[in-house]
Amino acid sequence: MHSIEWTGTHIKLLDQRALPHESIWIDLYTHNEIAQAISDMVVRGAPAIAIAAGYGLAMAIKNGVNRTEAAADLLASRPTAVNLHWALERLAKVPSHDVLTEAIQIHKEDLAINHCIGHHGAPLLTGGVLTICNTGALATSGHGTALGMIRSAHQSGQNIHVYILETRPYLQGARLTAYECMEEGIPCTLITDGMAGALLRSGKVNMAVAGGDRVANNGDTANKIGTYQLAVLCKAHNIPLYIAMPTTTLDRECLDGSHIPIEERPPTEIRSVQGLRIAPDNIPVWNPSFDVTPADLITAWVTEKGVWHPPFPI
Amino acid sequence: MHSIEWTGTHIKLLDQRALPHESIWIDLYTHNEIAQAISDMVVRGAPAIAIAAGYGLAMAIKNGVNRTEAAADLLASRPTAVNLHWALERLAKVPSHDVLTEAIQIHKEDLAINHCIGHHGAPLLTGGVLTICNTGALATSGHGTALGMIRSAHQSGQNIHVYILETRPYLQGARLTAYECMEEGIPCTLITDGMAGALLRSGKVNMAVAGGDRVANNGDTANKIGTYQLAVLCKAHNIPLYIAMPTTTLDRECLDGSHIPIEERPPTEIRSVQGLRIAPDNIPVWNPSFDVTPADLITAWVTEKGVWHPPFPI
Repeated sequence: MHSIEWTGTHIKLLDQRALPHESIWIDLYTHNEIAQAISDMVVRGAPAIAIAAGYGLAMAIKNGVNRTEAAADLLASRPTAVNLHWALERLAKVPSHDVLTEAIQIHKEDLAINHCIGHHGAPLLTGGVLTICNTGALATSGHGTALGMIRSAHQSGQNIHVYILETRPYLQGARLTAYECMEEGIPCTLITDGMAGALLRSGKVNMAVAGGDRVANNGDTANKIGTYQLAVLCKAHNIPLYIAMPTTTLDRECLDGSHIPIEERPPTEIRSVQGLRIAPDNIPVWNPSFDVTPADLITAWVTEKGVWHPPFPI
Repeated sequence: MHSIEWTGTHIKLLDQRALPHESIWIDLYTHNEIAQAISDMVVRGAPAIAIAAGYGLAMAIKNGVNRTEAAADLLASRPTAVNLHWALERLAKVPSHDVLTEAIQIHKEDLAINHCIGHHGAPLLTGGVLTICNTGALATSGHGTALGMIRSAHQSGQNIHVYILETRPYLQGARLTAYECMEEGIPCTLITDGMAGALLRSGKVNMAVAGGDRVANNGDTANKIGTYQLAVLCKAHNIPLYIAMPTTTLDRECLDGSHIPIEERPPTEIRSVQGLRIAPDNIPVWNPSFDVTPADLITAWVTEKGVWHPPFPI
């Protein structure tokens, strides 16, 4: 399963807004189209955004666009995930005629990184595993980070049951993680975001796993809104919480979570579900797309280089 | 604002499944129709269910139905809220020709009780108040319990800002509490259920208020799913949590929360939102409609008789 394809001439994205009902692939030919697709969440997930942005820069160069301006456009598409910065910085060091090759390399490396995360992380899992958002094949080049740990554990015959938080407002859990688990035959149960506490109290869950969008140098971790309260609930129930991430999610220049920019998204995501209005018109809303979990609520960070704790290895 | 009307010959219910988009009043003429309306959540909220069931018994008698069988049908409509039991037990002691009068009396008393809860509870509130589900005029005869506290505070000029948890799966917060607050001009902000932790951490919330569906003798409180984790989150942030309820929500024969029956509702409520499918077909779900909050996570119980703590007054 994957959501990003380089055709040789342009990029194709699986429109994640339409899943699980429809599999619609969108063809994109310019960096502006790609920046818009990132902003509109056609493609989402910190690693997948980085991959798409890499191809975006390659296409800007192909289209004769000023590459500095194109990189700025892509960087501005979403503010929280640091992998986007990392990919564009890596590409900034490469001559224009090599940018496409490097973008393809970033894409390929991500899949290898995902499998390494799964390799290091799978032994940590057993029984009931609670997860939030989508951190699977759709959020990456394939396989996934936190869901990659689960996928690796399942593929190696471990007895895993995934509990999936639906993850309002965008419903990445109900739409995407549920879809991946059903497609792969991973035993799973879908719950609403308000059920996490009752589920943890029931004793059915042994650990929780989540991804990361930006990890500060001290371990404070920005991830999908709801991760912070999941961490507090895990702590209260003595359940370990693992963050699975490529090391490119680590922002070493960011000393702690207070410096991580948190994107606020449009009110309509709260006032409606998939275009269906569910609340009074014009009701004021608060719609932060991420929150920051303090490092002391996280048991370990699972990376392609091993299971880490702060201070992180250099 | 109200959701239950006795016309003199039958009962009218405001269909709470259609709010806030449409105000549809449904006419019901038999106790079976009322039991079905309770089961289908046309009417919901522990006090409102009790009122509707009272009229249901009166209509069964009018229609020549065996009153014991009718009471059993009504009692079976939803298992968790104890107010339903209380109303039917109260009516069981009344001669058949007085049941309608007594049902009307239950209806009237509830409004007075709500105002008393508001009177006792409003002084506890200031600034940001987080609430879950709908505990307002629509969940009762009018005014409300937890939202009644907020309404009383707002009406007496206190400076209150309500933060509303949308409360999946049925979205009582987004659809009903949001509607009541907007109609009454109570300042409010709607958030998803996963945002409670981040909001509490932000310092914008001074206290949380919730209703109760059944309170055990030791104070353990069954309420809408999500209340338990709200309580854990409040404790972790040193935020008080108040349960607002008529004393008829207290089940003195229930020693603690482990004895409270928890209703599980149909999977379709999780797999879809207001009829719109959001998850893969046939994905396994867990859909408990309520959870139990241990008494030690609750700051106080606000009743029509005053602010209570266990052991509760006799």
